[in-house]
Amino acid sequence: MLGIQNIGTYIPKDFVDNFQQADRFETNREFVEQKIGVSTLPRLGKDETVVSACLNAFQNLSSKEAIDLEQIDCVVLCTQNPDNGGLPHNSALLHGELGLSEDCACFDIGLACSGYVYGLSVIQSFMAANGLRKGLFFTCDPYSRILNQDDKNTCLLFGDAASVTLISETPRYVLDRAKFSTKGAGSQALRRKNNMLEMNGRAVFNFALQDVPKQINRLLDDSGLTTDDIDLFLLHQGSRYMLESTIKRAGIPLEKAPVRLDKTGNTVSSSIPLLLVNELENKHRTILMSGFGVGLSWATAVYRLVE
Amino acid sequence: MLGIQNIGTYIPKDFVDNFQQADRFETNREFVEQKIGVSTLPRLGKDETVVSACLNAFQNLSSKEAIDLEQIDCVVLCTQNPDNGGLPHNSALLHGELGLSEDCACFDIGLACSGYVYGLSVIQSFMAANGLRKGLFFTCDPYSRILNQDDKNTCLLFGDAASVTLISETPRYVLDRAKFSTKGAGSQALRRKNNMLEMNGRAVFNFALQDVPKQINRLLDDSGLTTDDIDLFLLHQGSRYMLESTIKRAGIPLEKAPVRLDKTGNTVSSSIPLLLVNELENKHRTILMSGFGVGLSWATAVYRLVE
Repeated sequence: MLGIQNIGTYIPKDFVDNFQQADRFETNREFVEQKIGVSTLPRLGKDETVVSACLNAFQNLSSKEAIDLEQIDCVVLCTQNPDNGGLPHNSALLHGELGLSEDCACFDIGLACSGYVYGLSVIQSFMAANGLRKGLFFTCDPYSRILNQDDKNTCLLFGDAASVTLISETPRYVLDRAKFSTKGAGSQALRRKNNMLEMNGRAVFNFALQDVPKQINRLLDDSGLTTDDIDLFLLHQGSRYMLESTIKRAGIPLEKAPVRLDKTGNTVSSSIPLLLVNELENKHRTILMSGFGVGLSWATAVYRLVE
Repeated sequence: MLGIQNIGTYIPKDFVDNFQQADRFETNREFVEQKIGVSTLPRLGKDETVVSACLNAFQNLSSKEAIDLEQIDCVVLCTQNPDNGGLPHNSALLHGELGLSEDCACFDIGLACSGYVYGLSVIQSFMAANGLRKGLFFTCDPYSRILNQDDKNTCLLFGDAASVTLISETPRYVLDRAKFSTKGAGSQALRRKNNMLEMNGRAVFNFALQDVPKQINRLLDDSGLTTDDIDLFLLHQGSRYMLESTIKRAGIPLEKAPVRLDKTGNTVSSSIPLLLVNELENKHRTILMSGFGVGLSWATAVYRLVE
């Protein structure tokens, strides 16, 4: 059965000091620390791209795991801020840069903060249905490209990063069950307009608090599980206060749900793999992941350790 | 088993007369007729969008098939020219406009002329893996948004259109087997640069003639089939000369492979559903579809009639 074998990540060296940003916006530093929970926001350097960031994540993966490029038969990239406006799909550019075999399926998927949970299921089901055996699922969504520098609501939140997840027939974790939801009627809460991100923070907060815990608990119910049966909860790291409130509302014990966005900010579809990469060796029997944001879109999945 | 139940399409009323374009470019009208094979190129009107065109395709589908919106649990849209730069993913906007249930998975995929063959497999495998039962797969890639009006190579070729394919457990056609290939090293042949499409026609032609017939014949071999076993070949309608040359090179009898782009031009991921919609009632036992273009990416699939 296909599943998650390993993960590589990349966090750009360039960054913005969020306390300096707070001063620029005349915002209380305590607010930045306590409510947003982010001191440092990584930024793609001026010569960096989605493709170069993904290649760096792949380099990181390769340092942990010998990868025979000839065997890679599927590449999927999740982004809503691709290079070249996504034409060609950036997964094809990665295919070219990595020198992969022609017998390799490549496509991009357009999703934001729910993208990792979705994308894992998309690539795994597509590979299984088509007899593919070794895939790379990349995430990289550099919101720095669309931040309005005068908008403190978004400038203080989003960081750039990339990840790659190796999907193989010798996995550490396999998908147990997932749930996917959409509320297109609420899509105005997070959107690109004139190539800038617009966010209604209050609407996003209400969505996270109302809808995400409900989905998590419905998935647990449908799986015949309770929060006690889950060893680790990896929730999308939107902002510290929103995250902690969502965790509490869902009835998740705080010690099981890491809040770790201080050095990265909200990295969109890369936030969950940035957490998961540090937990892969820890033999958690069950991991629940939940991503939520742009769409509005939210997705939750339970993964099980392969013993 | 999930498969193709029905198709709705939309061709905008606005259009460009390709012979007038030929005059503008001081190009031989015979060349436009014989080599390109397109007299009329539909264009999204100034108030039309990807979302509105997809809704029109859905309207067309609804006129053929009663659809209970409450039952739709998956929406996938294939485009590389989305509204709002794809943030939010336009499938979420469609979700909102159609007033679909919250228990509905929505995501976009970024692919061009291979997108229909890919997208069908992506949505079907994702739905099957997640127990989803009724899905809508949209295509709409309005190249009019990125055409350089001084570039006759692309202006004479591309038309706008949209399609929606209803995926259900009561299908007329089900996927037998598919093959997906990528040559990222050749991606320069078709790309967006400064928000304009650039095409190396010669490179695309060579790709179509060399790689597409090879994939078609490999898929037939792997399936234990020959061209005799296939009742209908639906190839991406790039341009008349390229298409006819590809059909011949693949050893496909001309009468089994429609060339029907006169009134639409190359509609990217909508070209195959625009053909298929006219064939759904015809009880072909086996249909081979093959899409190829931007990436470079090519995909071929065999579908079987459910009897």
